[in-house]
Amino acid sequence: MKLLRYGPKGQERPGLLDADGRLRDLSGQITDITPDVLSPAGLDRLRAIDPATLPVVEGTPRLGVPVAGVRKFLAIGLNYADHAREANLPIPVEPILFTKATSCLNGPDDDVMLPLDSGKSDWEVELGVVIGRVARYVPQDQALEYVAGYVLVNDVSERFNQKERGSQWDKGKGHDTFGPVGPWLVTADEVGDPQELDMWLDLNGQRMQTGNTRTMIFGVAELIAYVSRFVTLEPGDILTTGTPPGVGEGQKPDMVFLKAGDVMTLGIEKLGTQRQKVVAWFNQEERA
Amino acid sequence: MKLLRYGPKGQERPGLLDADGRLRDLSGQITDITPDVLSPAGLDRLRAIDPATLPVVEGTPRLGVPVAGVRKFLAIGLNYADHAREANLPIPVEPILFTKATSCLNGPDDDVMLPLDSGKSDWEVELGVVIGRVARYVPQDQALEYVAGYVLVNDVSERFNQKERGSQWDKGKGHDTFGPVGPWLVTADEVGDPQELDMWLDLNGQRMQTGNTRTMIFGVAELIAYVSRFVTLEPGDILTTGTPPGVGEGQKPDMVFLKAGDVMTLGIEKLGTQRQKVVAWFNQEERA
Repeated sequence: MKLLRYGPKGQERPGLLDADGRLRDLSGQITDITPDVLSPAGLDRLRAIDPATLPVVEGTPRLGVPVAGVRKFLAIGLNYADHAREANLPIPVEPILFTKATSCLNGPDDDVMLPLDSGKSDWEVELGVVIGRVARYVPQDQALEYVAGYVLVNDVSERFNQKERGSQWDKGKGHDTFGPVGPWLVTADEVGDPQELDMWLDLNGQRMQTGNTRTMIFGVAELIAYVSRFVTLEPGDILTTGTPPGVGEGQKPDMVFLKAGDVMTLGIEKLGTQRQKVVAWFNQEERA
Repeated sequence: MKLLRYGPKGQERPGLLDADGRLRDLSGQITDITPDVLSPAGLDRLRAIDPATLPVVEGTPRLGVPVAGVRKFLAIGLNYADHAREANLPIPVEPILFTKATSCLNGPDDDVMLPLDSGKSDWEVELGVVIGRVARYVPQDQALEYVAGYVLVNDVSERFNQKERGSQWDKGKGHDTFGPVGPWLVTADEVGDPQELDMWLDLNGQRMQTGNTRTMIFGVAELIAYVSRFVTLEPGDILTTGTPPGVGEGQKPDMVFLKAGDVMTLGIEKLGTQRQKVVAWFNQEERA
């Protein structure tokens, strides 16, 4: 299944994409794509519904983050060997774990807003894992049983705030709008092997990142097992798993960073695509 | 006001502590101490209630985290000059920001559970700030207007996972039960100046940490202003502000770390006290 949420920000309704690519409304069945919907039993209940019986949503509504009430948005750094080289950093011995503030979550095609005084905002196409069951000290050979599904993530990052204001990265990872997720959550059964997915990102129509999840240093199962020793993963949590080469700070001869007016388009095989316009910072509360 | 939540874990009810130190039930007024209750208007509504009209809660129920639905649990590192010296680290030029997983939140007197294979679990008495209004790019001279109240926090930390598994600290900060908060949230008006509060922590009855918030490198107003440039603070978010000297890794001649059977007691002037028994890891789901 491809689960999604559609409608204006803060008023999203649950839906799914049917086999013919039509958006269908799930609000007669569930109130939202909440963490409990992502349990094995919750997903089975949705699978029992014949999509043809659900109302078709006409037009092309805005899509939101495909999970409501995300409690944790965790991220892995430098998880592609070629990206670590590009960043001039040694290949990690253990996965690098940091946190994206949940307040940065953003719909897949919503504008990405540059922080005030940002000079080094950058892109990162990533495979996101959405957790379906509470995971603590999970053995690696069972870890994929804890996955509800996968999502496309753009782990937008402000490199100065990430790396030049001290040792901890979280400052450059959680700016408002820095967490586009979606367009939909594709359940694990539909994705199959998460280590065989092509991925790409274009800036203004020019290919910047090309990769495949098979070149991850630590695969999805190993990451879930590893992280679950430190932080308990809960249903709805998103774990984004690192980016392949081609980010802005890796460009030669000069680094390239985001500016207002840029357009990012990105995709992962089986998980759909995103498109974000980059805009200057504005006061969301005044404009709302 | 001193707001609190009492009852079994996951079934807490809202309450307050009256001027005579009696626990009174607020569940006839509000469903829980949710983020919206912490807005200036929400707190004014509670202030309008005469505590004498609220039912007295008999006995000594368990206390939970005094805020329900905490979205972010952010933390500042090395924010006391003497603690930075003890940790053999330079005084930071800018505040160090990291994240404690919200899944580590724990009642003020609940057991603290050592992670499996933990050898370096440690204590940190800290002043926690609870946010009452959305804070983005807040000027320092207005920053305290965004505070709903203050809480006592024990920023329990596994030093090996924090410091010896790579550069990022979040791995050692978010283990289950590593975030005791409470006993109550004391509203900002009752606390007054947050930079004049004595604080202490005892291990098995022996004084380990002694400090006062006046020796913070970056004060509460500066921290809120600073963090709000990187991460939008939302009502109910907890920002814990660093610890004074006397943590286990700072002990001489030998470091001291937590072991099962230890008891931590800690307090901050005006904010109450906590008491935690340290226990070995167990499978919470099997025991529940």
